[in-house]
Amino acid sequence: MTDDLAGNRNVIEMEYAVRGAIPRRAAVLRAEGRRTILCHIGNPQALGQRPITYYRQVLGLLENPGLLGRERRLKERPAQAGDIELLPDDVLETAERILAAFEGGLGAYSESNGPLLVREAVARFIDRRDGVGPGEGVPADPGRIFLTTGASEAVKYVIEVLIAGPADGIMIPIPQYPLYSAVIRRCGGAQVDYYPDEDAGWTLDRAALEDAHARAAAKGIRVKAIVVINPGNPTGAILPAASIREVLDFAAERGLAVIADEVYQENVYGGEFVSFAKVLGGRDIPLFSVHSVSKGFHGECGHRGGYVEVRNPPHLAGTDLSFTDVLYKIASVSLCPNTVGMALVYLMVTPPAAGSPSHALFARERAHVLSELEAKAKLVREAFTRMAGVECFGRIGALYLFPRLGVLPAGKTDFDYCLALLEETGLCTVNGSGFGQRPGTQHLRVAFLPPRELLAEVLPAWIDFHGRYVAAK
Amino acid sequence: MTDDLAGNRNVIEMEYAVRGAIPRRAAVLRAEGRRTILCHIGNPQALGQRPITYYRQVLGLLENPGLLGRERRLKERPAQAGDIELLPDDVLETAERILAAFEGGLGAYSESNGPLLVREAVARFIDRRDGVGPGEGVPADPGRIFLTTGASEAVKYVIEVLIAGPADGIMIPIPQYPLYSAVIRRCGGAQVDYYPDEDAGWTLDRAALEDAHARAAAKGIRVKAIVVINPGNPTGAILPAASIREVLDFAAERGLAVIADEVYQENVYGGEFVSFAKVLGGRDIPLFSVHSVSKGFHGECGHRGGYVEVRNPPHLAGTDLSFTDVLYKIASVSLCPNTVGMALVYLMVTPPAAGSPSHALFARERAHVLSELEAKAKLVREAFTRMAGVECFGRIGALYLFPRLGVLPAGKTDFDYCLALLEETGLCTVNGSGFGQRPGTQHLRVAFLPPRELLAEVLPAWIDFHGRYVAAK
Repeated sequence: MTDDLAGNRNVIEMEYAVRGAIPRRAAVLRAEGRRTILCHIGNPQALGQRPITYYRQVLGLLENPGLLGRERRLKERPAQAGDIELLPDDVLETAERILAAFEGGLGAYSESNGPLLVREAVARFIDRRDGVGPGEGVPADPGRIFLTTGASEAVKYVIEVLIAGPADGIMIPIPQYPLYSAVIRRCGGAQVDYYPDEDAGWTLDRAALEDAHARAAAKGIRVKAIVVINPGNPTGAILPAASIREVLDFAAERGLAVIADEVYQENVYGGEFVSFAKVLGGRDIPLFSVHSVSKGFHGECGHRGGYVEVRNPPHLAGTDLSFTDVLYKIASVSLCPNTVGMALVYLMVTPPAAGSPSHALFARERAHVLSELEAKAKLVREAFTRMAGVECFGRIGALYLFPRLGVLPAGKTDFDYCLALLEETGLCTVNGSGFGQRPGTQHLRVAFLPPRELLAEVLPAWIDFHGRYVAAK
Repeated sequence: MTDDLAGNRNVIEMEYAVRGAIPRRAAVLRAEGRRTILCHIGNPQALGQRPITYYRQVLGLLENPGLLGRERRLKERPAQAGDIELLPDDVLETAERILAAFEGGLGAYSESNGPLLVREAVARFIDRRDGVGPGEGVPADPGRIFLTTGASEAVKYVIEVLIAGPADGIMIPIPQYPLYSAVIRRCGGAQVDYYPDEDAGWTLDRAALEDAHARAAAKGIRVKAIVVINPGNPTGAILPAASIREVLDFAAERGLAVIADEVYQENVYGGEFVSFAKVLGGRDIPLFSVHSVSKGFHGECGHRGGYVEVRNPPHLAGTDLSFTDVLYKIASVSLCPNTVGMALVYLMVTPPAAGSPSHALFARERAHVLSELEAKAKLVREAFTRMAGVECFGRIGALYLFPRLGVLPAGKTDFDYCLALLEETGLCTVNGSGFGQRPGTQHLRVAFLPPRELLAEVLPAWIDFHGRYVAAK
């Protein structure tokens, strides 16, 4: 009785390599008892990175406010031998402040764009980051900040509003994080590829942007926006301010919105992060900038907290609505993002103040995670120098390296390489073709997240594998 | 330089009354310092309902596993005068079991469909609920259960796969929860209205379903699925098993999938809940059943936990994929639902066992919430008997009543009525037209959530308002 269903081709055909064939094969190996090392995804806590103590102490109290009163009573007792460690005062105070902002606590729907306390804290964070002050820069507006279920949801919302029909195009860098291709496909729009210059450290020049735009226009595609991922995913490269300026000039001239994926803004090991908002200044270009609790030094992926900050929201033709009005409406259909994720965004943008009881441990944990990431990135990149034909470009950022595999045996693709690497060493990476790449090139993306001891063991195995693989006929 | 943007008409034009004009006006009044009583949405904890202690004790430990060890150390100390209350043992054990199922803890991405522990617990919950046992009923399959960010996300995923183009229709009851109209609109499909019989307690008969199907077919619409909300939203009515059988017979004959919104399955005060899965038995009809932590006696809306259980997933024409393969792919683009929401789903479907340390308090809290809801529903319904021309139908379920306003003054709509009610009494409801209603009728939806003392104060004010409103010329 059940006939085949004619389903939505856009969702049937969209692809998402980060959860694609290689990771699925890794899951099978794992189920068979093989050791696998999951470097296919930026999921730090799955690879042993520990949560920031301060964040989790606060979240524990938010979930169970009964502990707040109990902790205060414990603090009032005279200490005794063998006593247990109590939560710092600023943890209790922060939890109380957050609870006051969520009317009804974490169990109630909040405003669809998130509580004002959180949006104001995000705005202050952006201003601090960008050096906005009296007479300096353009302050962020809490009314144009939307909390979301991770940055992914923010990207989906923005692209969904932008794409009005199949001739509407979104420019994305190649290689790209496949969320973008998937969402564009799902919204029935046109993906317009542009090519950062790999050999110049994945920087952007105007000619590459214009070329992509012209090719799209020749096919009747009306480009609506350009996506930039900085630091890059999958490339891991940090974009120089000059490239950001190129993008903004280009967007201004072509009348495009800019979607700036800045979720790795705290993951820079070989240069400085410069935000699109800072370079934008007072220019009237629509800018959507997304950030997340999933990356940085916190790596709280599972909590799905994120936000989008909007500058210069366009008015929507034929309506009395601005872009942010429609974003609010879309958000309201889902009622609100999860409250814990929003609380974590608040914590991310409001670190313990210097001198507060939690500050020293927080600063130590933060420095430890970031210095480990830097050391691990360098270990992996160094290993590439011992693999024939492997080259890796760009100033190191994000959680990834994206080496070019220059000398694969004839007929072999990066997919074949990654599959064989997984089978032989247990190391799970993602083939470059899953992100898109310049025709004729081969790459892979590896997340430099495993603990150093594990890297010290697996990198030699990879070097060894590589030697054999490229030597095979 | 910023021109008007030609945005996506589907999202620009979709409507969502639950966050619409009346609630927005309430927010303005609130900001002006007026007291408002928020009965426009099923958000129990915002109206003072307290979280279930057991759930929150477990969640507090999941967020801060450091407390687990500390609690064990506290338990090992000799008790002393003025000692504080410790967490029950089963709270600690449950937290440990959940942490073991989330590889990397709550801060890591989980599998995109949710951890196996949670999906297995959901399957056992469904089987228990439906009396599935040896030789009795069809067991739920953990491989066809998808954890989601609230039930809303589950509904969006399913409808998105179903709608392949503008001629694809989804049948929805009128009145309906506006998530459905919004999602159908957003996916570019056709909304096909069918009319439950209000005077017969919002039950369904075959003729009403066939009539809707025939009207759609005459317009060239190919109906793909039928949505049923039981207990009803906004109607609050509990559907009898006979109506469920009608829907399944109809779906079988017309080759439709069934989307069963069963998020209020624990909210029944005047009859028994019978699930679609139970009535379906072994019949080969595609069934998507959604549930959520937001309602029931827990009301954990802000945590955004939900799931969809799929039975008989159709094969997708022209592909080697089943419906569940595509659901998995869509879920994977968002990486995973928030882990806390999934942990809460686990707790919802795995209550403390009889005899366990937490059981007595849990059972008491549960009974208290449900008996309060029942008492409050009856208070509100009783008040309607003192309002001229107001009638309310159906066996009471969910969190809502949806009275018909029989005698509004000429030229006045239910929107006008709800706005005036808000302005005069502070009571925020939603106009029936926000949900759809049979032409020529007027309704409103009210959530019976405020504490009894508050109802005792506001209901007389409402009765008084009503008398004056309908008497006005």
